[in-house]
Amino acid sequence: MEQVQLRPDERIDQLYRNHIQIIQSDAVFSFSLDAVMLAHFANVKRSAKAQIVDLCAGNGAVGLFLSQKTHGQITEVEIQSRLCDMAERSVQLNQLEQQVRVVHADLNDSLHYFAKESVDAVTVNPPYFPVKVTSKKNPNPYLAIARHELKTNLTQVVTTASDLLKTGGKLFMVHRPDRLPEILAELQAHRLAPKEIQFVYPRADQDANMVLIAARKDGQSSGLKVRPAVVVYAGETYTPFVQELLYGSK
Amino acid sequence: MEQVQLRPDERIDQLYRNHIQIIQSDAVFSFSLDAVMLAHFANVKRSAKAQIVDLCAGNGAVGLFLSQKTHGQITEVEIQSRLCDMAERSVQLNQLEQQVRVVHADLNDSLHYFAKESVDAVTVNPPYFPVKVTSKKNPNPYLAIARHELKTNLTQVVTTASDLLKTGGKLFMVHRPDRLPEILAELQAHRLAPKEIQFVYPRADQDANMVLIAARKDGQSSGLKVRPAVVVYAGETYTPFVQELLYGSK
Repeated sequence: MEQVQLRPDERIDQLYRNHIQIIQSDAVFSFSLDAVMLAHFANVKRSAKAQIVDLCAGNGAVGLFLSQKTHGQITEVEIQSRLCDMAERSVQLNQLEQQVRVVHADLNDSLHYFAKESVDAVTVNPPYFPVKVTSKKNPNPYLAIARHELKTNLTQVVTTASDLLKTGGKLFMVHRPDRLPEILAELQAHRLAPKEIQFVYPRADQDANMVLIAARKDGQSSGLKVRPAVVVYAGETYTPFVQELLYGSK
Repeated sequence: MEQVQLRPDERIDQLYRNHIQIIQSDAVFSFSLDAVMLAHFANVKRSAKAQIVDLCAGNGAVGLFLSQKTHGQITEVEIQSRLCDMAERSVQLNQLEQQVRVVHADLNDSLHYFAKESVDAVTVNPPYFPVKVTSKKNPNPYLAIARHELKTNLTQVVTTASDLLKTGGKLFMVHRPDRLPEILAELQAHRLAPKEIQFVYPRADQDANMVLIAARKDGQSSGLKVRPAVVVYAGETYTPFVQELLYGSK
């Protein structure tokens, strides 16, 4: 294992399932179940030729998890330099420099780094909350940018993904269920056909609080599948599915 | 209980939960779990002043079930005269002539029976399958019309519902999950804001095969809730939720 410098507020977390170690900081950014679910849901190609881009990469968790599912090249695009720095050190920590690249950029500038329509898969865990005059924002600027549409928005995310993806390429997104109608409309407006949707319910008797969406560039508009419901907790413990996802055993 | 004439192919089924009896015929039309789920999902007003319209009413099951939840007036609109005849006899059988009316009409002509934007709630269990040149249709013409978009389609259903509903009125629809993107686009195009969606999964490890949608006329476009997953079977038996729905006890 490589030695990397940690800042005072940082710690190293491990996803036990696959031994990936990730530099986290509650003061700046920590990945959550959303990132784990997205990486699990994203059905990326295994080929070493596959080009995979993770937008709104944060501290790089999704890209690092994906490295265990593919031999393809993974590029993490993140606008916040502090988060890029964490992501780069996590790449070193896991000795994944040959497979995972971190790019400090606004996602609107993604085409500076890739030819148009050249990418096989895009993953994205974007900011969930629209910015309204009345909306409360996190007073921590790092977390505010990660959670609120301050630096980007759904239209920009979907436009960028569509510009990057080749015909037949796939977008995998995690978002909040209340944005679903808007997400489906944006996908349709940008040549992305939704093919799979999966809802995540905190408990069996509660409303869904997460939705995973797979869409195919220039795909047929028919044939959407709504995958089995994921329930996170049963009583005080994780359900077997989520235990397996986090710890690799039931 | 009233005496009504049954044709040779007909039988009387009872929804045990609420003692409603319904004339059924496998040769013509039998209600299914979809109708029971829709009537349960539809959060109609209790007031005797409420005007409720069930489109694509079939043998009238949804309207009959709704009569147990409201004192309002219920009108069942159905294009097939044979199904209207069954629905009318079921209304008599349950002595609901004061509350439930059956109208034999094409739903496109609904505004011959109601003032525009005068209705509080519309329920609809429409034909699920688009008609394509290649699509297999049921050889039984009654069932073909009930299941395939031969006499109407999603655009006509949503347009009619929107024309009927007053501001703040609600549409409750049951449909197939693969049509969801199209349904949400049609709702948005016709002043109907989706407020609640619920998915029904045959088993916990299977894809959803039914979706329930509640939309509000001229409602705010934000605030969609995805309600808890309904799972129909556990092993060989119904789950407690569905047992309660059908039999009134767990």
